[in-house]
Amino acid sequence: MKIDSSKYRVDGQTDLQQHPTYEDFGLDKETLEDVLERVRSRLGKLQDTMYAHDKYAVLICLQGMDTAGKDSLIREVFKDFNSRGVEVHSFKVPTDLELDHDYLWRHYIALPRRGIFGIHNRTHYENVLVTRVHPEYILNERLPKLKSVDQIDDAFWDKRFEQINNFEKHLAENGTLIFKFYLNLSKDEQKHRLLRRLNKKEKNWKFSSGDLKERKLWDQYMECYQDAINRTSKEHAPWYVIPADNKRAARVVVASILLEAMEAYTNIQEPELDPDTQAKLKQYIQELNNE
Amino acid sequence: MKIDSSKYRVDGQTDLQQHPTYEDFGLDKETLEDVLERVRSRLGKLQDTMYAHDKYAVLICLQGMDTAGKDSLIREVFKDFNSRGVEVHSFKVPTDLELDHDYLWRHYIALPRRGIFGIHNRTHYENVLVTRVHPEYILNERLPKLKSVDQIDDAFWDKRFEQINNFEKHLAENGTLIFKFYLNLSKDEQKHRLLRRLNKKEKNWKFSSGDLKERKLWDQYMECYQDAINRTSKEHAPWYVIPADNKRAARVVVASILLEAMEAYTNIQEPELDPDTQAKLKQYIQELNNE
Repeated sequence: MKIDSSKYRVDGQTDLQQHPTYEDFGLDKETLEDVLERVRSRLGKLQDTMYAHDKYAVLICLQGMDTAGKDSLIREVFKDFNSRGVEVHSFKVPTDLELDHDYLWRHYIALPRRGIFGIHNRTHYENVLVTRVHPEYILNERLPKLKSVDQIDDAFWDKRFEQINNFEKHLAENGTLIFKFYLNLSKDEQKHRLLRRLNKKEKNWKFSSGDLKERKLWDQYMECYQDAINRTSKEHAPWYVIPADNKRAARVVVASILLEAMEAYTNIQEPELDPDTQAKLKQYIQELNNE
Repeated sequence: MKIDSSKYRVDGQTDLQQHPTYEDFGLDKETLEDVLERVRSRLGKLQDTMYAHDKYAVLICLQGMDTAGKDSLIREVFKDFNSRGVEVHSFKVPTDLELDHDYLWRHYIALPRRGIFGIHNRTHYENVLVTRVHPEYILNERLPKLKSVDQIDDAFWDKRFEQINNFEKHLAENGTLIFKFYLNLSKDEQKHRLLRRLNKKEKNWKFSSGDLKERKLWDQYMECYQDAINRTSKEHAPWYVIPADNKRAARVVVASILLEAMEAYTNIQEPELDPDTQAKLKQYIQELNNE
């Protein structure tokens, strides 16, 4: 099965409503899981090579509404990775220390090292998503010249998008490969998933009453997502919109996009031994055998 | 004594050789120390207010050749600060962990919180200074597409200056006040100071044979400093060139520039009590007195 990445990739003019929220490629659960197994195993091997090559870092940004399946996607897609090669950061409400710095600081700190996949579960994009739906949250940042919510105008958001674009450009120019995935969930499917959380005792802990409040703001969130995605999808840091109503298919799509993109970097290879060591390999073998 | 900040401030077209390396304002040691005492005490009080105001961070970047007096300037200028309000970071040769990230990462992490003065002793500018004189150091960053020193061309440095300018712009837009000082030492005065390090036993530890090697590259350093300063002196992040052959005068100049600039932010004030608490102050006093 071959996934066409370009179908999911955003060119900057996307209309979110035109993107499907469901996809199954005509395959049943088991088959989708088989496909995922094959893809993630190749991805894991590629990560090993990337670790040895040790020049690129990979930053994977995951965004989506509550219950979109971010956590389980992380669990399934990176299952075959050596833990050494992957690092997950989940960003919650900013702490006092984080609010004491500019809004990108906590994300900067958490950036992956060279040779590593860094997965950000919710990302710096929350600064133009949840805070755009709730501009009063911006006041927590204590920006010197911002006294009230009325001052948070279009120019404010323009500036913030410019800052985010500059941030990602800088990272890309210095060796980070950036992939941004929006898990595109339908409002109906969210309803089913929230009901499951409420009805299944062992899932209750994942529910908070805030989830229903945010759900009421669905349309505003969709507008903000669409704008954020369009304004920041770049050649060096593309956004992909992933149909998320079928979790298994969503995982296959994300894993396949990553695999295809990473395989295109044909320069990612184990480093060659320096010629001097290379020339002496036989000698070293002999030395050890003669011990 | 009134210092004219604009005399030291760089407009982007500066010729370093036209800047004096010596200045004493016709004052002797003791008088210069008296002046500094007065200025730094006012600066300390202003920092207290800034701490209470808790919206701005101040980033002070100090650059200069070996023996330019960076360490002793930090000791003297910020002597009257409550330690809570000031944080010094000295950047040495990057560690492995630092080289595993983009070159700005270690500087980003060390940024001051709101309400705090952060002093960077050597700064992110080393990435366009020491590495420009020694481009082979850039290879330690393991940038994916950079295979040899020949590839480090003008376009490479243009990009790096753009990245640094974007970084500082982002910080300024999010509440950091940035001041950059170049301690302008003459080559002759460096010779005297290095000889002192070598001749005085208790100063020996500060000497390294590398100091003499770098001294031989003096002219190259001056060229790189001039270019870096001109390309990155901005309204929101100005460079000041400080005559550094007389350490006491240099400290007075830096302290005065900071004081003048900070006093211009008349919005830096202790926060007002919320009206509710304000209205009940008398009641609280009575409560405590009646205990």
